Amino acid sequence: MIDVNVAIAGLDWSKEPQGLYAPIAYALSSGGKRLRMQLVLAGCRLVGGNEQDALPFAEAIEVFHNFTLLHDDVMDRADVRRGKPTVHVKWNDNTAILSGDQMLIEAYHLLEGVPEQYLPQLFRLFTKTATEICEGQQYDVDFEQRDDVQISDYIEMIRLKTSVLLAAALQGGAIIGGATEAQQEALYNYGIHLGMAFQIQDDLLDCFGDSDTFGKAIGGDISCNKKTYLLLSARDNADMKQRAALERWLMQTAPSQEKIDAVKQLYIATQAREAAEQAILQHTGEALDCLKALPRNDESARLEQMALSLAKRNN
Amino acid sequence: MIDVNVAIAGLDWSKEPQGLYAPIAYALSSGGKRLRMQLVLAGCRLVGGNEQDALPFAEAIEVFHNFTLLHDDVMDRADVRRGKPTVHVKWNDNTAILSGDQMLIEAYHLLEGVPEQYLPQLFRLFTKTATEICEGQQYDVDFEQRDDVQISDYIEMIRLKTSVLLAAALQGGAIIGGATEAQQEALYNYGIHLGMAFQIQDDLLDCFGDSDTFGKAIGGDISCNKKTYLLLSARDNADMKQRAALERWLMQTAPSQEKIDAVKQLYIATQAREAAEQAILQHTGEALDCLKALPRNDESARLEQMALSLAKRNN
Repeated sequence: MIDVNVAIAGLDWSKEPQGLYAPIAYALSSGGKRLRMQLVLAGCRLVGGNEQDALPFAEAIEVFHNFTLLHDDVMDRADVRRGKPTVHVKWNDNTAILSGDQMLIEAYHLLEGVPEQYLPQLFRLFTKTATEICEGQQYDVDFEQRDDVQISDYIEMIRLKTSVLLAAALQGGAIIGGATEAQQEALYNYGIHLGMAFQIQDDLLDCFGDSDTFGKAIGGDISCNKKTYLLLSARDNADMKQRAALERWLMQTAPSQEKIDAVKQLYIATQAREAAEQAILQHTGEALDCLKALPRNDESARLEQMALSLAKRNN
Repeated sequence: MIDVNVAIAGLDWSKEPQGLYAPIAYALSSGGKRLRMQLVLAGCRLVGGNEQDALPFAEAIEVFHNFTLLHDDVMDRADVRRGKPTVHVKWNDNTAILSGDQMLIEAYHLLEGVPEQYLPQLFRLFTKTATEICEGQQYDVDFEQRDDVQISDYIEMIRLKTSVLLAAALQGGAIIGGATEAQQEALYNYGIHLGMAFQIQDDLLDCFGDSDTFGKAIGGDISCNKKTYLLLSARDNADMKQRAALERWLMQTAPSQEKIDAVKQLYIATQAREAAEQAILQHTGEALDCLKALPRNDESARLEQMALSLAKRNN
C-alpha cells in the first residue's frame, strides 16, 4: 500500500523562487493524519481499482486541504499548527497569502496527473468541492456576528466546511477505481456523515474531553462563545431559567474557568450534551448504512471500523 | 462581436453567502479594458473560430486576472483601484483573502465551460500560466530586497508577471478556434513581446509621462527606488561619477521632487531612457514578426495596430 507521508514528502518544492515554494514545503511537512489522502486511496481500492492511479488525485486533495489551513491560519491569526509556527508567523502575511495561492494552483497542477478519461469529471468534482469549502468558511465567519443561527444552519455549515472534502476524496478515488454511480454516491454520502459525526464529536471533545488526550485546552469554544452544536442545542432546549443563565454567561467575555464549568453544567442540564451524542450516533449509523451499497472487503471493513471508532474517539 | 463588459456583467454573483460573493461582484464591476478577455476572443476569431466557443475561457482569464489584482492589492496595501476603494478597504483583509481564493476557484469553474475536447489542453495551459504569474509576483517581491538584480532578471520577472497571461489568452483563444500548433506558438510569442513592450513602456511613462494623460503621479517608481528597466539600465551604463550620483539619490528615501528630477536627468544622461525606448521598439518588432506566421485578416491587422500603437501610447 502507498505510504501517504512518503508520497507527500516526494513532491518536489526545490524549484525557484524559493520565497514562493519553501513555505509550501514547510506547510506540507508537518505531518498530520493525511486522512483525506487516505480516503481517496481507500475509495479506489474498495471498488477494486489500482491505488497508484488515484495517487495524483489524493495528492491534489491533500495539497488543497493544506492550502485551506494555511489561509485559515492567517485569517484566524493562529500562531501554531501541529506544534510549529504557522507560515505567516515564520515568514509574514504576504508570503502566506501568495504561497497559499500557489498551493491552490499546485493542487490543480497535481490534478493534471489523473487518468485522462476521468479528468473532466474529477476536475468538476474538485472545483465544486473547493467552492463549497469557501462557502462553509464564509458561513462560519458570518455566524460569529449572527444571533439567529439555527442548528440546521450549523449542520449545513459543517457539511460545507468539513464533510464535502472527505466525501469528494472518497468519490474521486472511487471514480478512478471504476465505481458505478451508485457506489460513488454511497461513498460520497458515507463521507458526508463521517464528517458530520467527526465535527460534532470535535465540539463535544472541546468541551467534555480530557486536555491531555485531546491535545488542547478544554473549553476554548465556550470561552469565545463559539456557536457549536452544544450551544445551539442548549439554547433550543433550555427552559426560561436555564436560558437566562446561559445568556448571562455569554455576556461575560473575559475567559474564566468558572464560566467554562457553569456552561458545561448547562449543556448537561439542558441535555445538549445528550443531543450531540445522539447526533453523532445518528450520523455514524447513516454512514454505516451507506456502506451496505458497497462491496464487502477489507477496505469497506476499514471504513466501517473508522465510523465506529469515531464515536468513541477521545482525541 | 461579443461585448466583453456585458459578458462580465452577466456573471451571476447573487448566490449565498453574499459575504463571499458580493466582494467578487464588486471587484469585477470596476471595468478596465478587459484586455486579456479581448485577446482570447481575438485569438479565436483570427484563426477562423467562433468567438462564442471561446467565451468561457475569456471569462476564466478575466476573473483570474482580477483575482491577482485583488490579492496583490492586499499585499501592496493599495487602497484604491480604478478610482474605487479596494476590497480589503471596503470590507477587510480576511474578506479579500477568502473572496480572492474563491475568485481563483471561480476562474477554474468557468474553465469547465470550454469545448470538451480542448478541456485538458486549456486546463494545463491555464494552470501553467497561473503558476508563472505567482512566480513573477514572488520575484518582484524578492527584487525589492536584492541589490544584484540584472536587466535579464527583470525581463524574466515581467515576462512571468505580465506577459504570459496575454500570451496564454491569445493561445487559448486560438486553440478553441482550431489553430495549428505553429499558429498557437506565433500568437503566444506575439503576446509575450506585446507584454514586454507594454511593461517597459509603463516604466517609461511612470518617469517621463504626463501625469494628466497617464492618470497617476509621475516619478512614483523613482521615489520608492523601484528596480525598473530604467534604473537597472542606468546602473549598467553609468560612468563612475553618474553611478555615484545615482547611488546617492537612492540612499535618500524621503520622497522629493528634487530626487525625481535629478534621477530623470541621470536616466537621460546614461542613455537609460534611450535603451528603454530601444527595447520597446525591439519587442514591438518581434511581436510584428510573429504575426507573419498567421492569416492576414481584420483580426491580425488589429493585433498589428495594437503593437504599433503601444510604442506611441501615453496612458
